[in-house]
Amino acid sequence: MSAPHLTPDEFREQGHRVVDWIADYWESLDGLPVLAQVQPGDVTASLPTALPERPEPLEAVLADLDEHLVPGLTHWQHPRFFAYFPANSSPAGVLGDLLSSGIGAQGMLWATSPAATELEQVVLDQLRQALGLPDSFARDGLGGGVIQDTASTATFTAVLAALHRATGGAARRDGVPGGAFAIYGSTQAHSSLLKAAMMSGLGEGAVRSIAVDPETQAMDVTALREAMAADVAAGVRPVLVQSAVGTTSTGAVDPTAAIAAVAREHGAWLHVDAAWAGVAAVCPEHRWIHDGVEHADSYVTNPHKWLLTTFDCSAFWVRDRAALLGALSILPEYLRNPASESGAVVDYRDWHPQLGRRFRALKLWTVLRTYGLSGLRAHIRTGVGQAERFAALVRADERFEIVTEPVLGLVVFRVVGDDDRTMALMEALNASGTAYLSHTKVEGRAALRLATGSWRTTDADIDRTWEALVGNLPAT
Amino acid sequence: MSAPHLTPDEFREQGHRVVDWIADYWESLDGLPVLAQVQPGDVTASLPTALPERPEPLEAVLADLDEHLVPGLTHWQHPRFFAYFPANSSPAGVLGDLLSSGIGAQGMLWATSPAATELEQVVLDQLRQALGLPDSFARDGLGGGVIQDTASTATFTAVLAALHRATGGAARRDGVPGGAFAIYGSTQAHSSLLKAAMMSGLGEGAVRSIAVDPETQAMDVTALREAMAADVAAGVRPVLVQSAVGTTSTGAVDPTAAIAAVAREHGAWLHVDAAWAGVAAVCPEHRWIHDGVEHADSYVTNPHKWLLTTFDCSAFWVRDRAALLGALSILPEYLRNPASESGAVVDYRDWHPQLGRRFRALKLWTVLRTYGLSGLRAHIRTGVGQAERFAALVRADERFEIVTEPVLGLVVFRVVGDDDRTMALMEALNASGTAYLSHTKVEGRAALRLATGSWRTTDADIDRTWEALVGNLPAT
Repeated sequence: MSAPHLTPDEFREQGHRVVDWIADYWESLDGLPVLAQVQPGDVTASLPTALPERPEPLEAVLADLDEHLVPGLTHWQHPRFFAYFPANSSPAGVLGDLLSSGIGAQGMLWATSPAATELEQVVLDQLRQALGLPDSFARDGLGGGVIQDTASTATFTAVLAALHRATGGAARRDGVPGGAFAIYGSTQAHSSLLKAAMMSGLGEGAVRSIAVDPETQAMDVTALREAMAADVAAGVRPVLVQSAVGTTSTGAVDPTAAIAAVAREHGAWLHVDAAWAGVAAVCPEHRWIHDGVEHADSYVTNPHKWLLTTFDCSAFWVRDRAALLGALSILPEYLRNPASESGAVVDYRDWHPQLGRRFRALKLWTVLRTYGLSGLRAHIRTGVGQAERFAALVRADERFEIVTEPVLGLVVFRVVGDDDRTMALMEALNASGTAYLSHTKVEGRAALRLATGSWRTTDADIDRTWEALVGNLPAT
Repeated sequence: MSAPHLTPDEFREQGHRVVDWIADYWESLDGLPVLAQVQPGDVTASLPTALPERPEPLEAVLADLDEHLVPGLTHWQHPRFFAYFPANSSPAGVLGDLLSSGIGAQGMLWATSPAATELEQVVLDQLRQALGLPDSFARDGLGGGVIQDTASTATFTAVLAALHRATGGAARRDGVPGGAFAIYGSTQAHSSLLKAAMMSGLGEGAVRSIAVDPETQAMDVTALREAMAADVAAGVRPVLVQSAVGTTSTGAVDPTAAIAAVAREHGAWLHVDAAWAGVAAVCPEHRWIHDGVEHADSYVTNPHKWLLTTFDCSAFWVRDRAALLGALSILPEYLRNPASESGAVVDYRDWHPQLGRRFRALKLWTVLRTYGLSGLRAHIRTGVGQAERFAALVRADERFEIVTEPVLGLVVFRVVGDDDRTMALMEALNASGTAYLSHTKVEGRAALRLATGSWRTTDADIDRTWEALVGNLPAT
């Protein structure tokens, strides 16, 4: 037999059907519980343990998707998904990603698909300008941008580049001497900083968690200065400092400019993690979050969170691409080619851990163009406005309190009283399916997080979520 | 203004249009040059440097795609793309990936979308059985499978897990002492092994490149044994040995069982890199490539290469998931949840470097079901048959020679005579646009690689490529 590839006409017909399935799915979400209502093993038990011998029609896949999988999904595109941060897969993002799948190009080298590399360079420079990021990241100087899969990977590569620079290239060759280096982030830094230390050979012990201001949850720069001085006195070299622009827990914005000054004294690499918040700088009124970023050696923000671009798309820029390439470049014979050897092109395989890479610039380009700067700003402003709307409801009800001043699209609040009531409220709300929030701890006490920014959320969804919160409030 | 999200009806209409664009693109490929015919900077020069202020219609994006980007693409789905290895984005793979984009779920924790985690567990166990991989990788024992983005990442995580096991967990905490450890692969091992050493803190100096048999290009196990003994004598601990099942250069299959015996003597982790070849084991007649895999600690093969699944989808299994989790697990407060703490579920964030993760199981499931085992075997057999057809043409022409015996869908050959003629032939063929081959070096001499396995290649494409090779043969 020959393999049952769909003919072009079959692909058209079934492709239209899948597009319609997605549109139907989005339209159905308002009536579905946000959080999956299944127990561990339920989905597994509904599926066969072995593959079919004969081909099955796509209809069978879609039927099982509807019957067995959709009930087991937590719906990240639901209008009342407020947990974690948004992971927008907008209609335009989906279409751009679909083009990338159909083209199926690998952009590991410029030579393996020049347009994939060059569009990525162009669109990242367009985005850089739109976010007010410094010229030092521009591709026509010593810097440049690349799409990483996630901010975790961006932070990891920043650590590798910093180690490369700090050791004059010895780290790549000889490894990382234990105990010789330290990296710094606040106690509120994303867990990926710790993971980067674990993966890079530094070890968890190399991470210094710097105290934060109890009220703002932003890094205490005096504490950073002391920690770095203590390390230097002990013969440990400061390699990298991370400034968090919008922490996961409360959205705190570290004082990047002040951190930069301390980092500079020790020659440490300054990495700015603006994974969630950074894209808000498309609006001039939010561009203050980038104060001091002109001193950064690297910077990451995720269009796949708040900026409507289907996962994965993490935009990462560096001031000195030579450090990144120095840490990561490899050149086996089968990848040698005249364009690379001419030095006239960028080969993105040397900018990240992976070799193979998808044509991700296409979805980002589709989103940025079809929304336009005005549409992107409108989307960010809608999310910020909805957060303000929710915060006003919290402030007006004496049974609740704001925990940290809201930042952009994140409201951190709690029930007045003990932590158990706060956690019980979240569990009741999430179990109800009406909305989905997540929690954190602030200064040791439980707090709830409501993160706006989904492309499907309306003001009515904010109000309905508030009503559900009040309705599920545990008795005192 | 409000953000210009497409309405459901607009999404349906534009989605159908994009599906049709892809079908048209695939149908146009036969008439396009495989290798992009552009110079560095051409694509960049055709694009604006700044984003538009106002939204642009999708039509404008598609028009620019046709006019400016398609000419700059090397067409990986072209029927005469024979370079590197295939990166199949089959119609079914594209549709499965589209579903994943539309659903837009994040499966970093079981709790954040249970069906995403459980489908991945189920489909990887279905694939494990279909490839004849050992029960030690099954999810109901101590092992398990996960979809990584690329085999490079799989190999990197295998190195981290091996270091965790070898140091009893100390590597995670204290880092990697320089010079204390070694990892082993043949001189033909994929460059990702070297990159893993660079990224993990071991350093390039920790990689031992073991000699191969000059004829088969498979690892010389005697040389491996000697290298490991020499390291032990010098106080260096062997941590990991990689067996390559289908090297990139020539498709060589290392003797996994014999390698396993040597690795076991030193307690070294055995990682099998079957990135390209492994999926061929869906056919019983090719299952010999997995001889000895029952001794492996980890194994990777890429459905995104030969098995019709849109990039990225790298299937990775481990015998002892505890080592992997030990190396990579993190648990910040905002990710705590009752399901994780019950121990009843798998949280895939602890199986790879990234935190966020796409619902990639959906595309693999769509492919495996809609092809069925019979269809998957037919696809593999078509590729193998086309390689045999091409090899027969080479053997019948005294101006050419086979360099290494063909393995599955890879033919390595050259022009009889000096290397310059071989390289000049490849450059002429690639520049002609008729077909696209890549090159390698075998025992120091240039050789060309023709890798079959694209879902769009017919026997006529093989014949046409051969004719173009003969037609472009440089004069002696």
